[in-house]
Amino acid sequence: MANAMETLKEACGELSDIGSAAAVLAWDQQTYMPPKAAEDRGRQLAAISTIHHERLLDPKFDALLAELSGAALAGDDRLYVDEFQWVRERARRLPSDFVRENAMTQALAFAAWEEAKKKNDFSIYAPHLEKVLSLTRKAADFYGWTDHPWDALLQDHERGMSHKELQALFAGLRQRTVALLDRIKASTVQRDFSFLDGTWPADRQWDFGMQVLKDIGYDFEAGRQDRSTHPFTINLGSRDIRITTRLREDKLLDALSSTVHELGHALYEYGMGLTDPRSPLGQAASTGMHESQSRLWEIRIGQSRPFWRAYLPELKRHFPNTALDRVDEETFYAAVNRVQPSFIRVEADEVTYNLHIILRFEIELALIGGTLSVKDLPDAWNAKMQELLGITPPDDAHGCLQDVHWSGGGFGYFPSYTLGNVFAAMLMEQIEKDIPDLWQQVEARKFGQLLDWLRTHVHSKGRRLRAPQLIRQITGKELSSEPLLRYLESKYADIYGFAAQ
Amino acid sequence: MANAMETLKEACGELSDIGSAAAVLAWDQQTYMPPKAAEDRGRQLAAISTIHHERLLDPKFDALLAELSGAALAGDDRLYVDEFQWVRERARRLPSDFVRENAMTQALAFAAWEEAKKKNDFSIYAPHLEKVLSLTRKAADFYGWTDHPWDALLQDHERGMSHKELQALFAGLRQRTVALLDRIKASTVQRDFSFLDGTWPADRQWDFGMQVLKDIGYDFEAGRQDRSTHPFTINLGSRDIRITTRLREDKLLDALSSTVHELGHALYEYGMGLTDPRSPLGQAASTGMHESQSRLWEIRIGQSRPFWRAYLPELKRHFPNTALDRVDEETFYAAVNRVQPSFIRVEADEVTYNLHIILRFEIELALIGGTLSVKDLPDAWNAKMQELLGITPPDDAHGCLQDVHWSGGGFGYFPSYTLGNVFAAMLMEQIEKDIPDLWQQVEARKFGQLLDWLRTHVHSKGRRLRAPQLIRQITGKELSSEPLLRYLESKYADIYGFAAQ
Repeated sequence: MANAMETLKEACGELSDIGSAAAVLAWDQQTYMPPKAAEDRGRQLAAISTIHHERLLDPKFDALLAELSGAALAGDDRLYVDEFQWVRERARRLPSDFVRENAMTQALAFAAWEEAKKKNDFSIYAPHLEKVLSLTRKAADFYGWTDHPWDALLQDHERGMSHKELQALFAGLRQRTVALLDRIKASTVQRDFSFLDGTWPADRQWDFGMQVLKDIGYDFEAGRQDRSTHPFTINLGSRDIRITTRLREDKLLDALSSTVHELGHALYEYGMGLTDPRSPLGQAASTGMHESQSRLWEIRIGQSRPFWRAYLPELKRHFPNTALDRVDEETFYAAVNRVQPSFIRVEADEVTYNLHIILRFEIELALIGGTLSVKDLPDAWNAKMQELLGITPPDDAHGCLQDVHWSGGGFGYFPSYTLGNVFAAMLMEQIEKDIPDLWQQVEARKFGQLLDWLRTHVHSKGRRLRAPQLIRQITGKELSSEPLLRYLESKYADIYGFAAQ
Repeated sequence: MANAMETLKEACGELSDIGSAAAVLAWDQQTYMPPKAAEDRGRQLAAISTIHHERLLDPKFDALLAELSGAALAGDDRLYVDEFQWVRERARRLPSDFVRENAMTQALAFAAWEEAKKKNDFSIYAPHLEKVLSLTRKAADFYGWTDHPWDALLQDHERGMSHKELQALFAGLRQRTVALLDRIKASTVQRDFSFLDGTWPADRQWDFGMQVLKDIGYDFEAGRQDRSTHPFTINLGSRDIRITTRLREDKLLDALSSTVHELGHALYEYGMGLTDPRSPLGQAASTGMHESQSRLWEIRIGQSRPFWRAYLPELKRHFPNTALDRVDEETFYAAVNRVQPSFIRVEADEVTYNLHIILRFEIELALIGGTLSVKDLPDAWNAKMQELLGITPPDDAHGCLQDVHWSGGGFGYFPSYTLGNVFAAMLMEQIEKDIPDLWQQVEARKFGQLLDWLRTHVHSKGRRLRAPQLIRQITGKELSSEPLLRYLESKYADIYGFAAQ
């Protein structure tokens, strides 16, 4: 048995190495690859992905898994086998003809989406989205479902959860966030944020971001930061977790918040690699749990008052003789946390962000469930924007055409963003109990104890528990949006000068 | 038949894509990879290489090649099949157990070589070199040979050639180069090269090199230059040929000559990719032919008088207010082409370089043939240095420990460096006939016609002909070191003020 287990681990390790090789290709593609290499790179990535897929489904695993299924295995080994079996079974459910058709359809849909967004013409995208939807429903059927086909898609991100649980979780969040937004809109507090106007040299933004990365504890011997069009984190091996950022000279805070966001993802990957390198267990508990790590660092730490008490002077040193000279800590803190309904999700503040997500969640359910047709999508989108945020997009480019996800069949993904905020809030309540002087530490630019806490309680667990179980193990509580709402309502009552309810 | 041919091309294209994927990993390893990733990266590269090897030996090719072997195929298709079959047969000759043992032995020998060189202690390396030699002789036996086992190793680099042909080719080169060196040593011409002392900022060296790359016609949309410890060229796909350079602030000309050298390699790869992307025919005619392209650009163009007539003013613009201000064109040209016997091959001038190679060639034959034992290597090396260059290394670090090649079983490779010079000289004689105003063009920084000539006559031929046949097709002449000697003797008679013989 020990032998079968060793053989399995060896094979899984090799699968992981092949996956990492593909990651190196993808990283290069988005950072340093010269433009004319695009076609070749597409083929190279397809070749490596196909090899990975074939090896995953290699019949040799059947005998191995059969031998291991009845065996007495130590706790972690049992989890290891179960996890591998789940991933393999999931990959096996989709016939290879279907996978090919799906890839082709999604590639065309992506091109159509790009064009439609650019030309602000939903009709270019609509027929492609129809096809993607139809194939995605088919995929749900291949995976299997009982209550709603969308639940089958959710399993790639939040295994074990269902749309019903999310509806329950989001109901209070939806209602109280809308109410909070109304109070914020009604606030009479006036602040002058004009100090943010102007041009902020990219190289100084870069240096400031690097300083923060170093302070928080990013290991530059096991990773690096580069520039890319869209910021991302990528795992190229258990000791090679890289991040990228985007530098916009008209946005002082854009690069930093994206840097700290990606740092949160990277620290999670790094921590899992310490415990479970090249193992199916060294994976995030869920997409939402991954997002909780990025949001915790980006927002809960990086947009906190103690953080900026520590870093505003540093920021001023990086940008001497600018409008920053005249800004005080409170104004700066309010600027970082400014709430304003807007059309584009990726530019949204932390209050309205969850409303953008709930909108997509509700629309996805209707699209996948067949109660909303593609042709009615723009109207449904705009109506919900009005209902949730009180604004109506001027056009579809600022509405239902803004996200790339659906063109690639990425249904079931969006809720993870809000789950990340929910998880982060629950974790933060526990962290504030376990580290009573957390905020003094942050103000002293000391992040080691917080990072250790996250390593111990979250990172080192990898995929041993589903996200809600992991949260329960850590906090002793069931999943709830209450901590997130408590935090939001108290924070913004403070900033916008009304009494918390 | 068309179908079998298409199937073969598809499979070869995929093999090429997998090889390119490995190249991306290798490029990153030597440019941007963080240090702690080294172990993972080794495993990832091993995984991809193993997959490449397995696919190459996939039994499916047996039937395919059998079907194609008797078939009537158009010229290029026949060459395509033959080339693939040769590569595959060569890979198949080595049993996989032997390949593993070889890899292990060479890895240990590499580590021992590094330590031995650092500690200047040949005895650390000797037992490892013994083992490598013994396995390399075994490999020669697996490949098969008739006259001398070394000939079997040469086939990876100069297919169809033999040590006897090289001995014949090198005999005159050896004798007349030693004689030329004697005349140079006896020269009474005095020049002041002290303007080269001092510090040359790396960023300006970089800018100057980039300017030259642009002028010569490197396509930055299908490649890029980065920094690395050892300069190299690497093919990451037919439209992605990258080069690296090394910047040493104490050496003004080091980076430029390495940049132009790698550019020559890159232009060859680029040209082959234009004609034969993802094909076994889109490979260099031989290692020596590859070297001819780098040496032609590095030395024949980049160290020519017309080149520096054009670029010395540009260099002075890049380094204003330095000792360069007081140097004239003739002195600079003489400095670039300074001849001085020295211990280290990679730092040698173009006259003594071939003597370094002939030394290694003669020693390799004796080591592989068993007429020289490893324990006698240092003495044999030093004796030959005295015989050929008139100097004796102060220690083994400056002698037989200087090169990495043999630790990895790289026997049969060294002669390619001198063959590169021989080929380049034969090509240059033809080029000067075909482009009568070549040197006026170089002086006007126009390289397009030369590049077109190389594309037409060398690059686009890929591996359709062996190197000597390709040279004969282009020049109408048999392989000879006469053109190289003619060029060297005339050039250095001019620089060192004696009559060419």
